[in-house]
Amino acid sequence: MSYITGFHAIEELIKAGKAKGPLLVSNAGPRARAVMDLAIEHKIPINRTGEHELDRLARGHRGIALTVEHSSVTNETTVEAFIADLEEGRDSLVLILDSITDPHNYGAILRSCDQFGADLVVIGSRRSAKDTETVSKTSAGASAWMPVAMIANLVRAAQLLKDAGFWIYGADMGGLPVDEQKLTGRTAIIMGSEGSGLARLLKESCDFIVSVPTNGRVDSLNVSVAAGVLLYEVARQKRAAERKPDTKTSKKK
Amino acid sequence: MSYITGFHAIEELIKAGKAKGPLLVSNAGPRARAVMDLAIEHKIPINRTGEHELDRLARGHRGIALTVEHSSVTNETTVEAFIADLEEGRDSLVLILDSITDPHNYGAILRSCDQFGADLVVIGSRRSAKDTETVSKTSAGASAWMPVAMIANLVRAAQLLKDAGFWIYGADMGGLPVDEQKLTGRTAIIMGSEGSGLARLLKESCDFIVSVPTNGRVDSLNVSVAAGVLLYEVARQKRAAERKPDTKTSKKK
Repeated sequence: MSYITGFHAIEELIKAGKAKGPLLVSNAGPRARAVMDLAIEHKIPINRTGEHELDRLARGHRGIALTVEHSSVTNETTVEAFIADLEEGRDSLVLILDSITDPHNYGAILRSCDQFGADLVVIGSRRSAKDTETVSKTSAGASAWMPVAMIANLVRAAQLLKDAGFWIYGADMGGLPVDEQKLTGRTAIIMGSEGSGLARLLKESCDFIVSVPTNGRVDSLNVSVAAGVLLYEVARQKRAAERKPDTKTSKKK
Repeated sequence: MSYITGFHAIEELIKAGKAKGPLLVSNAGPRARAVMDLAIEHKIPINRTGEHELDRLARGHRGIALTVEHSSVTNETTVEAFIADLEEGRDSLVLILDSITDPHNYGAILRSCDQFGADLVVIGSRRSAKDTETVSKTSAGASAWMPVAMIANLVRAAQLLKDAGFWIYGADMGGLPVDEQKLTGRTAIIMGSEGSGLARLLKESCDFIVSVPTNGRVDSLNVSVAAGVLLYEVARQKRAAERKPDTKTSKKK
């Protein structure tokens, strides 16, 4: 079993007829109440659940979580629904993947997103990894619940996130070393494909280009290792900022 | 083509009958001269090469490099030969892999070692990845020249490295967050297998246990991502120390 917590994400699953439930509710504020009404309309069972129990099952919930079957469901959402569900003033970490076709790499990236607390993965509708079984296995199960938004136009995804107060960082050759770039606040990182790097239009939509400083004989890092290092660096800077709260910054909206 | 630069490593290859040459020489000091004598004895051709040309072909050479065929050769050495070739007072980074059986992970780790400037990979003779073609491909070719020492007893490898002034860091659950652990000077990192972590005896031979701080629902990072993050963190601290040279430390011998 896995648990979906975003209000919009739950609504999308229910409307799409993909939800069987039950819907777990620990604390029914007005927003959760609206989701419950939708669930009742679609005959999804609702279970009253203790606060601690829901904390344990569904980290980051806001009073409500939809139960989904681990094996069959991927946690699909949209960039718009994700942004609508973002709490005011909350930092966030999004990874945008351009043309990641290898299912091992994609799975390993989802697993790292889970480990380093990324909130959303955005992938292009075309040219993305398709083999869900390999993805699920290499992701160690994270593919069942890690929120993934599929969008035809990644430039548009970057724009939507910018409008929601995100800084957009492109991972590419020749950028600022990532450990010298401040990566706090609302952060979206775009990873290009291994062979050809970031597409030109997508690169132009970035606020900054960052690189993992390396010095090897072969061409570059494996894309899932590079993604892991970038996510680690964001987490590291966040931890460092929490040790010195006065140095924490976020983007002005 | 690939190029082996360690004096001992070259000698081992020649003695093992694995070297065809040519041996490239830009600057024949007494140590290089001894290798040349051995090459002549084994009928290996010797080419006089310009200093700049050798710099380009074989980063980190000390006047001499052995040409080897990319496809067939892995750069095997021994821990003893590696230590004997280490320059006095030089920092160094070694990765020790316990039971990494998946060739994709092993290849990706060799590639990261190349990118982050590790000097040696040590693997156990048993229970290591065997599929050299997959390893070579996932390593993006780094497997042909990244020095790898195979040893029956990894605890002994740790002890040899300790005696050569290395600090031994074990990567395992419950250790100090790696970004709070100083990782400068001569550094050896031991990675356990993905399922079971570090073996007890090996863990006891570590000076420190370090962890990549994560907070996920699934169990842990993929081992090649974890290795990439640890190697990145060593490189990051080294870069930070070079920006502030007064804070640089190394282990007293």
